[in-house]
Amino acid sequence: MQRGKPERIGFGVVGAGTIGRVHARNIAARRDAELRWIVDVDVSRGRALADAHAARFTQSIEEMLADVSVHAVVIGSSTDAHEQHVLATVGARKALLCEKPIADRLDRATRCVAAARAAGVIAAIGFNRRFDASHRAVFDRVRAGEIGNVESIHIVSRSFEATPPPLAHRAGGMLREKGTHFYDLAFWLAGSEPVEVYTAGDCLFDKGYAQYGDVDTAAITLRFASGALATMSFSRRTSYGYDEMIEVFGARGMLQSERQRRGAVSFYSGETIARDGIHPSWYDRFAPTYVAEIDALIAAVRTASPFEPSLVDGMRAQAVAEAAVASLAAGKPIPIAAVWQPT
Amino acid sequence: MQRGKPERIGFGVVGAGTIGRVHARNIAARRDAELRWIVDVDVSRGRALADAHAARFTQSIEEMLADVSVHAVVIGSSTDAHEQHVLATVGARKALLCEKPIADRLDRATRCVAAARAAGVIAAIGFNRRFDASHRAVFDRVRAGEIGNVESIHIVSRSFEATPPPLAHRAGGMLREKGTHFYDLAFWLAGSEPVEVYTAGDCLFDKGYAQYGDVDTAAITLRFASGALATMSFSRRTSYGYDEMIEVFGARGMLQSERQRRGAVSFYSGETIARDGIHPSWYDRFAPTYVAEIDALIAAVRTASPFEPSLVDGMRAQAVAEAAVASLAAGKPIPIAAVWQPT
Amino acid sequence: MQRGKPERIGFGVVGAGTIGRVHARNIAARRDAELRWIVDVDVSRGRALADAHAARFTQSIEEMLADVSVHAVVIGSSTDAHEQHVLATVGARKALLCEKPIADRLDRATRCVAAARAAGVIAAIGFNRRFDASHRAVFDRVRAGEIGNVESIHIVSRSFEATPPPLAHRAGGMLREKGTHFYDLAFWLAGSEPVEVYTAGDCLFDKGYAQYGDVDTAAITLRFASGALATMSFSRRTSYGYDEMIEVFGARGMLQSERQRRGAVSFYSGETIARDGIHPSWYDRFAPTYVAEIDALIAAVRTASPFEPSLVDGMRAQAVAEAAVASLAAGKPIPIAAVWQPT
Amino acid sequence: MQRGKPERIGFGVVGAGTIGRVHARNIAARRDAELRWIVDVDVSRGRALADAHAARFTQSIEEMLADVSVHAVVIGSSTDAHEQHVLATVGARKALLCEKPIADRLDRATRCVAAARAAGVIAAIGFNRRFDASHRAVFDRVRAGEIGNVESIHIVSRSFEATPPPLAHRAGGMLREKGTHFYDLAFWLAGSEPVEVYTAGDCLFDKGYAQYGDVDTAAITLRFASGALATMSFSRRTSYGYDEMIEVFGARGMLQSERQRRGAVSFYSGETIARDGIHPSWYDRFAPTYVAEIDALIAAVRTASPFEPSLVDGMRAQAVAEAAVASLAAGKPIPIAAVWQPT
Repeated sequence: MQRGKPERIGFGVVGAGTIGRVHARNIAARRDAELRWIVDVDVSRGRALADAHAARFTQSIEEMLADVSVHAVVIGSSTDAHEQHVLATVGARKALLCEKPIADRLDRATRCVAAARAAGVIAAIGFNRRFDASHRAVFDRVRAGEIGNVESIHIVSRSFEATPPPLAHRAGGMLREKGTHFYDLAFWLAGSEPVEVYTAGDCLFDKGYAQYGDVDTAAITLRFASGALATMSFSRRTSYGYDEMIEVFGARGMLQSERQRRGAVSFYSGETIARDGIHPSWYDRFAPTYVAEIDALIAAVRTASPFEPSLVDGMRAQAVAEAAVASLAAGKPIPIAAVWQPT
Repeated sequence: MQRGKPERIGFGVVGAGTIGRVHARNIAARRDAELRWIVDVDVSRGRALADAHAARFTQSIEEMLADVSVHAVVIGSSTDAHEQHVLATVGARKALLCEKPIADRLDRATRCVAAARAAGVIAAIGFNRRFDASHRAVFDRVRAGEIGNVESIHIVSRSFEATPPPLAHRAGGMLREKGTHFYDLAFWLAGSEPVEVYTAGDCLFDKGYAQYGDVDTAAITLRFASGALATMSFSRRTSYGYDEMIEVFGARGMLQSERQRRGAVSFYSGETIARDGIHPSWYDRFAPTYVAEIDALIAAVRTASPFEPSLVDGMRAQAVAEAAVASLAAGKPIPIAAVWQPT
Repeated sequence: MQRGKPERIGFGVVGAGTIGRVHARNIAARRDAELRWIVDVDVSRGRALADAHAARFTQSIEEMLADVSVHAVVIGSSTDAHEQHVLATVGARKALLCEKPIADRLDRATRCVAAARAAGVIAAIGFNRRFDASHRAVFDRVRAGEIGNVESIHIVSRSFEATPPPLAHRAGGMLREKGTHFYDLAFWLAGSEPVEVYTAGDCLFDKGYAQYGDVDTAAITLRFASGALATMSFSRRTSYGYDEMIEVFGARGMLQSERQRRGAVSFYSGETIARDGIHPSWYDRFAPTYVAEIDALIAAVRTASPFEPSLVDGMRAQAVAEAAVASLAAGKPIPIAAVWQPT
Repeated sequence: MQRGKPERIGFGVVGAGTIGRVHARNIAARRDAELRWIVDVDVSRGRALADAHAARFTQSIEEMLADVSVHAVVIGSSTDAHEQHVLATVGARKALLCEKPIADRLDRATRCVAAARAAGVIAAIGFNRRFDASHRAVFDRVRAGEIGNVESIHIVSRSFEATPPPLAHRAGGMLREKGTHFYDLAFWLAGSEPVEVYTAGDCLFDKGYAQYGDVDTAAITLRFASGALATMSFSRRTSYGYDEMIEVFGARGMLQSERQRRGAVSFYSGETIARDGIHPSWYDRFAPTYVAEIDALIAAVRTASPFEPSLVDGMRAQAVAEAAVASLAAGKPIPIAAVWQPT
């Protein structure tokens, strides 16, 4: 795009579901961007979203991609449509942000990564947590050497309300759906490629997940090329809110991205101090990350700079997920190289 | 205004200074409101703000008030113009939100309160802290009886960067400018009329305030009709951010609206745990309160309901401020009744 | 006493009440000290305490003072006997630790201070809070200049269970009994002589205190020669434990001796995080200070060094207490010089 | 022993090393117990410890065991002597507290457990952390059902100063020496037998451990019969103190035994709040647990009640340790049943 006068970045959003609506709203609220198109197979919800933001609607991604005023495309369609949408966008040589996972199979994801690389377009993966201010501050400080060599990482991720088994299965199961965010965070913080993963897991509160080979509770051990070890404690539900916490331990100190609270009130009474608890939901906790993600994307598009996390990061996390699923089934650690090699 | 279909609430903003810009931006960002006019004596800054939000500009408040599509007026002009702007708005029978103080003299403020009451319009005072989520949660829980009878309150308010003495003087001095927010919060939380105030204060880091009879550090004791006691610790600057904290102590417990932090990172190293500090500035800490305040104003206008805090609350806080100033000069406690009686 | 081989320091404890028992137990538990005598008018409780620690008992302070193996005397008798016991101990040229207040009247306290000074003996006042590890760390860091010039101090002191009015009256009332500890802490932390005190107070939960001119709730403002201001929030009871907290605010930062908790358990459930509350009682919170106080006294006796806090500190705090009581009665600030001048 | 009048419990302490001295001091300080004998092969250190507490010294455990006034024996000798000392004590039908591990080989430990069971004596294992007030409060609340079914546990244990490799090897390596405490805590909190363990580990800061097959950093996954999963993050050293923390997550909430701090001071300055860090050493953090452990032992001896944790608990933890070591070597999870079956 042209430099000089700060043109507004034109956006198309593919998929008018939950995440598409979040992105559409965030793009529409910006002065330096313009939401131009909503693309969806479902006319009703697609048109409603377009109307809400004075954007145009189409069922055809090609129609949107043909618009030269569209500079960037957010792909929030259903996972089985991702490959088609990524390849079309790459073919049109537009920047893209694809929600994770890149595709529902590793071979399809590999094709997407290769195509984006060949085209040289900005190809972002929607790992929004990298844009959490506290997670990122930890990353920046780790990279700046504040804790020296990273030796271990611990991540807690416990959702508030469990996705029912069939729906959870359609989303790929906990080790894929939830897991990819955290495999990526661990890689990012460790600054080293993952080499092996071990998964222990079980259905502790809902046996319904078992029929899909899925679990509701898992403990992951991820080993990196540097020797660093990450442990992860996953659960599909808590009684107390959306629980996420990261600790990075190194030779010279430990950095923690703390549990965050929904409010700042403490009540002293009797034998306890009752403090406002953690955020009730994922969205309450992480809404600002979607704004920051779009912010970073616009900056990258404007300056034609690379964007991280990219599809390669999405690919790596998907590979770890496949290895984690294999580990759960096999009852032993699985090398990442058994499913994927970074190129 | 009409009910039935949810008309957008039309706004005029008087004053294109810092606070006017905050309100203009917040109003413009809403779907249920429309920023229609910016009024300012300064054409340049007024027109710039109007243009930024596609609003109209005028130097004449009357022109704006004549527009029937304006339902509510935010008065953020200079304090010496407040009386004129309040009376004009009341005369036009529009809802208003007046930044504090209502006026630069108690008699003028009294006239404003009387006029608004006589007209029966919504007349809000800009005590935005009442809309802080944590302060309000404390209020709601106090009112719900969680701590029983309120016995004492402690408020810390320390700004980050000191206003230079001449500017601080023009704003009325610390006991008025900063103080009114907290006299109002204390009244609100105590649920009782203030009866007496004692001020101790001094210039501990900048003697320049002394030539205006002002101080940079103060300790306030405010006594309420209920017998409850509030203490306040004020400073014009800290080395560590914008410091605000409230404790309300009662017969059955203590509620605290805690110091809030700019981030959620902890660094364990050596003999300390270094946690992200408090917000660097007033605006970082309280930006959301201005959004909530406009939210509440729109709701009140839409439903023709009374709004709190009202000009009466502004009047009370101004009266406490005058008594606090008098106490500092006299070196002894001063009854609020010496300067004002609630009617 | 002799140097060279580390002789054990011999102690007499006068008064076998609560505080006498605390001191006796702490002295008896040491390897570098020996509890030799218990003195009490009450034979039964005195002998019981002596027997418990294999010490000797007497009703006569003179008999104890005649024992050359007694190097230090802890005076924990009733307040009206303090003057006699201090003067006798000073006359015997033994080191002493007198529980506060020095005496029940300022003139008597003055005589004690003068006698101790003339004799040149170690004459400690029992302000145990100066030996709290966190309070002292704050003091050390303030003195080391970490926060620059001290501008303000805030102290919370709220007891857990209210002393009944008649008993509270016999102990001198809240402004004396509780207050002296905190007037002293504020002086110590401010590093400056107190010049004026203002007391606001009331009976908010038990009107029974009023008949003795006492209150159950008070807000104190103490002004120091340096200009620094201390505020204090006192209550006779809480519903949630023994509440003590200190903040010292200065030009370059703020140091806080935090509320301390009875345990380190957090319970995440529903919308709150319920953390273990503060200590249930004064003794749970401050037991270690009595050990540290005796430790410091033994060190001072062994090295013939001055001890702080001394009777002069006790005198100062008593004077502030008298001024605070006068302020409550008069409804205005009272200069400390009106009741006492440091010499 | 006799009931009725509260006889003092007589103790013999075997081993005058670090832990023996801790126990000797704690026993000697009690009024309800008496330290009667110190047993050690090293006359010099043994006699010194005996003299310090006015106890008798012998090199012969039999001489001590022949004393009918000895009711309980604390075995803190070197690990290779434990079997002999446990069997002798059991033979004398005295209560015993054996420091962990029970013995240097599982078969020897098994013999000790069997002998103690056959004799019906109180046979305690020195898992002092079970007596930490906060850990125990978590246990009590878990047992009381506050968090419902236990689903996962996370334990952090990072020592402050790394034991040098040769010494660490002599103590059994990190997975045994450090690990047994935490395998036991996890079992205790899960309320279920461990069934499988997976260990990932490496030498990240000192390759010297590798020559002994040991590591300096480890991540453990322990699976229980109930399905619950425990993860553990171990390190041999931190830059910031002795780091121990436990989280127990269940169906209805999460209980945390928090990191504890060495002091209660916060320093607000610049962009951070610097709080007093965690305890510098293991002993600063856990000294009170040794007192509580002896307390519990005395109570059990006095009332002839069973004691937990017992040698069976010690046996289980040792078995998990052997499986953890085997897992590290094999690079895959190892069933506990492969090394031990509870009987």
